[in-house]
Amino acid sequence: NTTSSTKGILTMVRAQTSHPLDPLSAAEISVAVATVRAAGATPEVRDSMRFVEVVLMEPDKHVVALADAYFFPPFQPSLLPRTKGGPVIPTKLPPRRARLVVYNKSSNETSIWIVELSEVHAATRGGHHRGKFISSKVVPNVQPPMDAEEYAECEAVVKDFPPFREAMKRRGIEDMDLVMVDPCGCLTLFLLLCANPLLTGVQDITVKLMLQGRRLAKPLIFCRTESDCPMENGYARPVEGIHVLVDMQNMVVIEFEDRKLVHLPPADPLRNYTAGETRGGVDRSDVKPLQIIQSEGPSFRVNGHFVEWQKWNFRIGFTPREGLVIHSVAYVDGSRGRRPVAHRLSFVEMVVPYGDPNDPHYRKNAFDAGEDGLGKNAHSLKKGCDCLGYIKYFDAHFTNFTGGVETIENCVCLHEEDHGILWKHQDWRTGLAEVRRSRRLTVSFICTVANYEYGFFWHFYQASECTKSAECSNEAQLNPMSSLSIRNNFAPLNSRLFQDGKIEAEVKLTGILSLGALQPGEVRKYGTTIAPGLYAPVHQHFFVARMDMAVDCKPGEAFNQVAEVNVKVEEPGKNNVHNNAFYAEEELLRSELQAMRDCNPLTARHWIIRNTRNVNRTGQLTGYKLVPGSNCLPLAGSEAKFLRRAAFLKHNLWVTPYAHDEMYPGGEFPNQNPRVGEGLATWVKQNRSLEESDIVLWYVFGVTHIPRLEDWPVMPVDRIGFMLMPHGFFNCSPAVDVPPSSSDLDIKDSNGIAEKPIQNALLAKL
Amino acid sequence: NTTSSTKGILTMVRAQTSHPLDPLSAAEISVAVATVRAAGATPEVRDSMRFVEVVLMEPDKHVVALADAYFFPPFQPSLLPRTKGGPVIPTKLPPRRARLVVYNKSSNETSIWIVELSEVHAATRGGHHRGKFISSKVVPNVQPPMDAEEYAECEAVVKDFPPFREAMKRRGIEDMDLVMVDPCGCLTLFLLLCANPLLTGVQDITVKLMLQGRRLAKPLIFCRTESDCPMENGYARPVEGIHVLVDMQNMVVIEFEDRKLVHLPPADPLRNYTAGETRGGVDRSDVKPLQIIQSEGPSFRVNGHFVEWQKWNFRIGFTPREGLVIHSVAYVDGSRGRRPVAHRLSFVEMVVPYGDPNDPHYRKNAFDAGEDGLGKNAHSLKKGCDCLGYIKYFDAHFTNFTGGVETIENCVCLHEEDHGILWKHQDWRTGLAEVRRSRRLTVSFICTVANYEYGFFWHFYQASECTKSAECSNEAQLNPMSSLSIRNNFAPLNSRLFQDGKIEAEVKLTGILSLGALQPGEVRKYGTTIAPGLYAPVHQHFFVARMDMAVDCKPGEAFNQVAEVNVKVEEPGKNNVHNNAFYAEEELLRSELQAMRDCNPLTARHWIIRNTRNVNRTGQLTGYKLVPGSNCLPLAGSEAKFLRRAAFLKHNLWVTPYAHDEMYPGGEFPNQNPRVGEGLATWVKQNRSLEESDIVLWYVFGVTHIPRLEDWPVMPVDRIGFMLMPHGFFNCSPAVDVPPSSSDLDIKDSNGIAEKPIQNALLAKL
Ligand SMILES: [Co+2]
Ligand SMILES: [Co+2]
Repeated sequence: NTTSSTKGILTMVRAQTSHPLDPLSAAEISVAVATVRAAGATPEVRDSMRFVEVVLMEPDKHVVALADAYFFPPFQPSLLPRTKGGPVIPTKLPPRRARLVVYNKSSNETSIWIVELSEVHAATRGGHHRGKFISSKVVPNVQPPMDAEEYAECEAVVKDFPPFREAMKRRGIEDMDLVMVDPCGCLTLFLLLCANPLLTGVQDITVKLMLQGRRLAKPLIFCRTESDCPMENGYARPVEGIHVLVDMQNMVVIEFEDRKLVHLPPADPLRNYTAGETRGGVDRSDVKPLQIIQSEGPSFRVNGHFVEWQKWNFRIGFTPREGLVIHSVAYVDGSRGRRPVAHRLSFVEMVVPYGDPNDPHYRKNAFDAGEDGLGKNAHSLKKGCDCLGYIKYFDAHFTNFTGGVETIENCVCLHEEDHGILWKHQDWRTGLAEVRRSRRLTVSFICTVANYEYGFFWHFYQASECTKSAECSNEAQLNPMSSLSIRNNFAPLNSRLFQDGKIEAEVKLTGILSLGALQPGEVRKYGTTIAPGLYAPVHQHFFVARMDMAVDCKPGEAFNQVAEVNVKVEEPGKNNVHNNAFYAEEELLRSELQAMRDCNPLTARHWIIRNTRNVNRTGQLTGYKLVPGSNCLPLAGSEAKFLRRAAFLKHNLWVTPYAHDEMYPGGEFPNQNPRVGEGLATWVKQNRSLEESDIVLWYVFGVTHIPRLEDWPVMPVDRIGFMLMPHGFFNCSPAVDVPPSSSDLDIKDSNGIAEKPIQNALLAKL
Repeated sequence: NTTSSTKGILTMVRAQTSHPLDPLSAAEISVAVATVRAAGATPEVRDSMRFVEVVLMEPDKHVVALADAYFFPPFQPSLLPRTKGGPVIPTKLPPRRARLVVYNKSSNETSIWIVELSEVHAATRGGHHRGKFISSKVVPNVQPPMDAEEYAECEAVVKDFPPFREAMKRRGIEDMDLVMVDPCGCLTLFLLLCANPLLTGVQDITVKLMLQGRRLAKPLIFCRTESDCPMENGYARPVEGIHVLVDMQNMVVIEFEDRKLVHLPPADPLRNYTAGETRGGVDRSDVKPLQIIQSEGPSFRVNGHFVEWQKWNFRIGFTPREGLVIHSVAYVDGSRGRRPVAHRLSFVEMVVPYGDPNDPHYRKNAFDAGEDGLGKNAHSLKKGCDCLGYIKYFDAHFTNFTGGVETIENCVCLHEEDHGILWKHQDWRTGLAEVRRSRRLTVSFICTVANYEYGFFWHFYQASECTKSAECSNEAQLNPMSSLSIRNNFAPLNSRLFQDGKIEAEVKLTGILSLGALQPGEVRKYGTTIAPGLYAPVHQHFFVARMDMAVDCKPGEAFNQVAEVNVKVEEPGKNNVHNNAFYAEEELLRSELQAMRDCNPLTARHWIIRNTRNVNRTGQLTGYKLVPGSNCLPLAGSEAKFLRRAAFLKHNLWVTPYAHDEMYPGGEFPNQNPRVGEGLATWVKQNRSLEESDIVLWYVFGVTHIPRLEDWPVMPVDRIGFMLMPHGFFNCSPAVDVPPSSSDLDIKDSNGIAEKPIQNALLAKL
């Protein structure tokens, strides 16, 4: 690790205007790139630098706490513990740092650079940034993610390669403009294959090249049909039987073989999905408009990347690899103050393994975050199409391969949604009803990984607050921990604030199926025939959410633990004469190896992240529970080779104590990764204690996708996700203080029937 | 069975204006009640009649087909097969019939009556109804559901019973206005208990009384706190230790014992949930309004109970027992015409078993549909509170106990919802994106069962249609069934219509937890301490959806079957050298005993309802698949007594061939039910063939509820459900023809940044 000391805190001259967790600005990226380039030893080195990733180096948690306490609104000095003689407040924050992954195209070396960024204020012309080289190191034997520019160059090189043109000609294609060469995510297995005695000599050569650390791509080939469609769906014609291996460093084809003449599938008349006549169809005209109007604006407030909504607050971050990051999630709980829930939430990896053992499908098991980048491939969103209602968008900035700054405008979407009824009860004696509507705040982005689209959504549910004139004088009796030293205790009895809030993570899957060609008359056991000559192999989509939790932990506190809950059937016997009894049993997950767990819907299994020292009004430890949604495990055989580098797929839950360099479950550079002793499954072998620590949850969830005809040409959104729900975190229900909505009596229904106040009440009947 | 012959078709004089599936109107209910009462043998019999249920007797499916073909718009003569010399069209439909469940309060007898209803048109004063007695029969040894009026009378009787007042006084309560006596759903286990040697003599007496067929109730007691709250939450103070048994026929207390002095729990300051100061709190004021505006009206059309929306059509029905019923679900598929999906969808039962073996909780396992009635307890809904957007409401009519007509206005809600993105793809080469928004149609009702609320929702997803100039000339080669006789074959090649549509069933659970009292210092293994002295036992909620399917079946056709799909891991070996292979395996469920199945997320298990004779363009049989959501099985011991009458909970899926008298999985009269050889688990013992039949699916789904502090005093909505998705029903994707939405360029985001057309496209970078 290259982090240098934090002595910078003493040498800074001016306060910064960027919060320590704000993503790098376009200006900062420019300065970071320029600083690294200037530090190149020779002109050759400087020219050969390619910029794979430039990202904020997130500071230690205490720097964030310092910033939130004293430097950024809503200034929360209570965050930091008091020391003798009052708090020690530094006059400055340490400077921000950028971390760069640089690929040297001449030397084929990957290096990691750290640059310090200072904001310099000149009286005459505003502020600018200045970069300072801090450190650099070469990382041997890795290949960083490919860049879209390399994809484009690779496509051009292959299309120019005469034997390739010859092979395409044999398949009836002379117009190279129709050909698509997709180098994404198909090489990662290669090295692991070397263990297999059944491999051909050709593949052994590939393995040897990789062992030499070459930057290689083995693309998938598709071929568009000639048509006027503005977005002709080329994925409808996979080209098979051609083996191409490209040296991406030198951009040359190093292996080529036309192994088997597989004819192109016929042009499927249903392949396109653009509007109306451009696809050869007619759009429906009977969908009436539906608008969401927030005449008084949204209920959220945004200041830079800081978001406040209904007592929730958090910061929005973004990285090229993960896309959206949610930092510093906390609840402002009246006189209990700011109660943290999580330090950092993001999706750190996804893997899509295919079930067909035939080439090229067995190679498809891309690590879409680590090999390509979810954030780098994010969309610029459009109001009314991608999102409805009052939208606040955030832009995202990246470097491109040659070091220029790219901006995706409107990349992250923040908006509110009505989410149906929140709660209701109608008294059957009186017919009186209380009902409240649910509002949620949604933060999301959508990205393309080659053919597929993934939308990542974090939904925050209505924060609410109920003030009570409380009379719980017997509370202490019920509190089994009341003799312990309990901090963060209750507010004065006659003015308590209680709140609630659920956080839901949701992934939406859409886009275009990855297809294979079928020979005439052929059917495949491993997928669905989708159209004449076209076949969609069965596959799975796995996602890894990394959640650095902080349930009721102030900065510097590491007081969390995780309990697994299972419902158990009670033994028959004297205390269970009717055989009806069951109960929830908790088991503390004491160490990492004990905390590799799988879902079990039959026991209602879930996991509670507890604060070890804070209790609610019944004396139970405060907590948030992770409630799984539908889930699965990999269906590949347990000896499947891709599971060596994707060992983290073998369980649905992993828990680790926080370590700042444990970010990506497949390791930082999973691309062409020959190192199996890396990543989450390796870290947990330390079997560190989890009894009281800064808990990081890794929730792995997946869906098995057996393609349907109805998934073609564009798959309707499928959804998968999970929830974080307060569990004894608050003393009472969510949303008792959400005000009732006014009934829209002015909008009559089509019968014009007016509503009567009390109906179907027993009292009204008697 | 009492259905008489259909010769009525010949004797009818006039066409009816009600569709054969329309629920009974208020006028029809009145006439039905009057007809039955007039048929009573003596004045005593007539006076003693109590009307538990008056409901449309749904006609045979061919009558419905006749009505839809020739009598009601949108007249669909294609529904009925042509016969030699053209179709035989009757001039009239048979008259509608009502079915009445009558309880004789003098004789304690339950009887079922059938009445024929004719509409009589008099020139001078419009139409009226005339009833004709058809049949009646006594059903021995059953007790029909209790009525709300009986609940109220029972409460009054108990409160007037001096020993009860004495017992309450010992608990500190003298004001009987505070006391709540809830007789719901707690007696049903009793008979089964007689097998248990550990029971006390008192309970044996109860059993004997029940064996004598008595109508009994053993209420739960609660006691409100004195307060000004308009909806004081009485469920916050359960009264325990008092045994009361009420003879509901004669309305007298027949057993009473103050068994154990359990003190009332202290008044919980957080027990109430009304708005603002009435609960002793303050409501939040920072939720800004969010309105849904459909300025051009909804996209649906309603004619009576017939609904058309985006190529979907269906009829809305309603019964006191099931609540909402969806009849005749079909898709209008262009030149393929009307393609049925289901005859009838409804929720036919629900059961809520509790996990605490202590009295009274072990008795809580109410059959809320069969013992109480989901429809009878439905709410009158309010726009803006229960539902947003343009709403079409339907009223529901019932009889009350004494035979009067009750109406719940605005009982069923029909409206459209935006449901996020429907599909999206962005080409990474060009940056061009196509995105469509999802619209769904939602039909729902909400009911109260004592303390709990349940909302039942059926969501229909955007119907869509893509016209293609098709060139699939090699289709026949690919179609393995092309040599078979395939009906409903394709439309002319250059004008095909393809459509899609998913149906989602969703139950929303909310309301008030059923609590028990704790003695000071007591904790219970079987639940969660919610507040001082208050405890919420762990429990499960199970729902049974009955789905009489008709996938691509015209009237009279019984050409459906069900296949189970599981994903299997491929054996290692020569064809699976990378160990990555897996595949979906189908197994036909050939008979009823083979079709008792449970969910298995690890194999992606689901069930496809296939038409046995229709194929899609790849030659696969057309079908709809049932995709489970999260689910569980009962946690009670397998010998639990309530599972004898709730044996249908033992599996998640059951399949039967349609039989018109197989409607309720626990039998028609589960209340106090001593007959274990009844209901779904008994019917399937016939092991009827399912290879090609009129398939009825029974999907049983549940959730295990471990109460949280945050579920009190009103539980935030929890959701559970499942999907019916087209699976090769259509030839291509859902929603290719949904038009793009216009981007709201006029509404700027708070930064006022304008959008640029193409961003982050590779072409733009190069
Ligand atoms: Co997929
Ligand atoms: Co519950």
